[in-house]
Amino acid sequence: MEYDVAIIGAGPAGIQAAIHASRKKVSVVVLGKLTASAMSGTHIENYFGIPGTSDGDSILKAGKEQAESFGCVFMEKNIISAHPDNGDFIILTEDDEEITAKSIILATGISRKKLNVPGEKELFGKGVSYCTVCDCNFYKGKTAVIVGNETEAAVSAELMTKYASKTYWVSDDMQASDTVYRKALDAGAEFISSKIREIKGGDRVSSVLLENGSEIETDGVFIELGAKSSVDIAMDLDVMPEMDDTVKVDRECKTEAPGVFACGDITGKPWQIAKAVGEGAIAGLSAAEYVKGRK
Amino acid sequence: MEYDVAIIGAGPAGIQAAIHASRKKVSVVVLGKLTASAMSGTHIENYFGIPGTSDGDSILKAGKEQAESFGCVFMEKNIISAHPDNGDFIILTEDDEEITAKSIILATGISRKKLNVPGEKELFGKGVSYCTVCDCNFYKGKTAVIVGNETEAAVSAELMTKYASKTYWVSDDMQASDTVYRKALDAGAEFISSKIREIKGGDRVSSVLLENGSEIETDGVFIELGAKSSVDIAMDLDVMPEMDDTVKVDRECKTEAPGVFACGDITGKPWQIAKAVGEGAIAGLSAAEYVKGRK
Repeated sequence: MEYDVAIIGAGPAGIQAAIHASRKKVSVVVLGKLTASAMSGTHIENYFGIPGTSDGDSILKAGKEQAESFGCVFMEKNIISAHPDNGDFIILTEDDEEITAKSIILATGISRKKLNVPGEKELFGKGVSYCTVCDCNFYKGKTAVIVGNETEAAVSAELMTKYASKTYWVSDDMQASDTVYRKALDAGAEFISSKIREIKGGDRVSSVLLENGSEIETDGVFIELGAKSSVDIAMDLDVMPEMDDTVKVDRECKTEAPGVFACGDITGKPWQIAKAVGEGAIAGLSAAEYVKGRK
Repeated sequence: MEYDVAIIGAGPAGIQAAIHASRKKVSVVVLGKLTASAMSGTHIENYFGIPGTSDGDSILKAGKEQAESFGCVFMEKNIISAHPDNGDFIILTEDDEEITAKSIILATGISRKKLNVPGEKELFGKGVSYCTVCDCNFYKGKTAVIVGNETEAAVSAELMTKYASKTYWVSDDMQASDTVYRKALDAGAEFISSKIREIKGGDRVSSVLLENGSEIETDGVFIELGAKSSVDIAMDLDVMPEMDDTVKVDRECKTEAPGVFACGDITGKPWQIAKAVGEGAIAGLSAAEYVKGRK
């Protein structure tokens, strides 16, 4: 599948970008789940023109329909990777579909979801990590526990088997696709159907306590909730994130990498819907212009 | 009347700024008419979350109600002037009300409304002008025609009497307040109730032809439709507009003048509602923060 513009992230920034790019008559695909947006499941009262208290999911759905009415395609799937390829970009979805795009708009948001268990905060940086791809190299010959029920946990578990001598993957409500789940297990990860109750340790992580009562000794705990993190995707695309995980853009929402644009929470505060759609419109127009310039 | 934040312009940028500033518990007034917004009287289909084709006026009204629900005050009046005053700002409305504000957000839009009559385009810069305050000095001892039915025409006519030996003011559907209307006439402007049908001239303007059939010899025609122009207000506030009449802002929507912020069409393209609300949110938060820092 080939598109002019691939938008990663289906929140207000991504959908507004889709609306503006589609109206410029370039082909547009939006990748990601509407329910992964930070506005999903919330009540909205501070976004111009949406009166009273409205629920975020209805607004997202309305926005999706708007974008579709201009010809935009939605694929409500997580992605596994996105790489530059001779001036284009190759994106791989969780069920192994390959998409080629002439430009990419990063609209992933910025959430590093927390597990919210005892020990997580205290042992962060001492064996607790939110970025397997960043830290896996430190776990050669060691034991690692990957936590999460979505694509990113599966991909992280598979990756970790290449470094750690023992990789556990703990999850209780599996949402990852069969493809990525199988790959992780085939690579040697041991799957445990449970939840983390506590992360234990002193100077460093020593074990995790599970809800099923058992305790697993480990050197590290990798919390990989949700889809592929924005930091990982940005690095895939040769865009170096800032220290606070945001991505720098100019007034036209261009990143440092040619053909890669960004909008919404990933470009920094304020984390507001209005700011997200404002940048979305600009990123959508900029990406469309970039693609037209290449044709 | 004293407010923490005065927002000039009641379009999507100004109203979104009002929502975000008000929620930060600073006092906020919005000055300007909703119907003066570029989205008034139009159909909207490209703004995230507003499905189908919606009319701009309903969205503006909904936004106003949102802002009011957070405590923001709307004064649907045009302004005559806005000046820095010992770190604060003094704003004068068309009916002579004075407002003091600790900070100002420029959300005026950028329209220089055209008259759309024969000769207007051809004689632009040759006697046809859209900025009385910019060009009045060239009309010492000459004859000038001011065109427009709103505050800005009245104020321009009054100003021109101080330069020109003869000032006509042509308008057919008077909307300016009695106060500014009287001032212009008291200053010596001659009011003619008619419309311009054509602007005549060769190398320069020589006369205007009116719908009532009469022709007036003149050296210049000043088209001052609508409220005070964004360029004039910016210059009042010591913000120097760019060549294209836009105002430069940084990522926090700050202008070069302390305490003055700007958002929406006045900061440049794309002229889109989404971009306007995005900047509105940022300007609102920045202004609230500025005011809190001063307290």
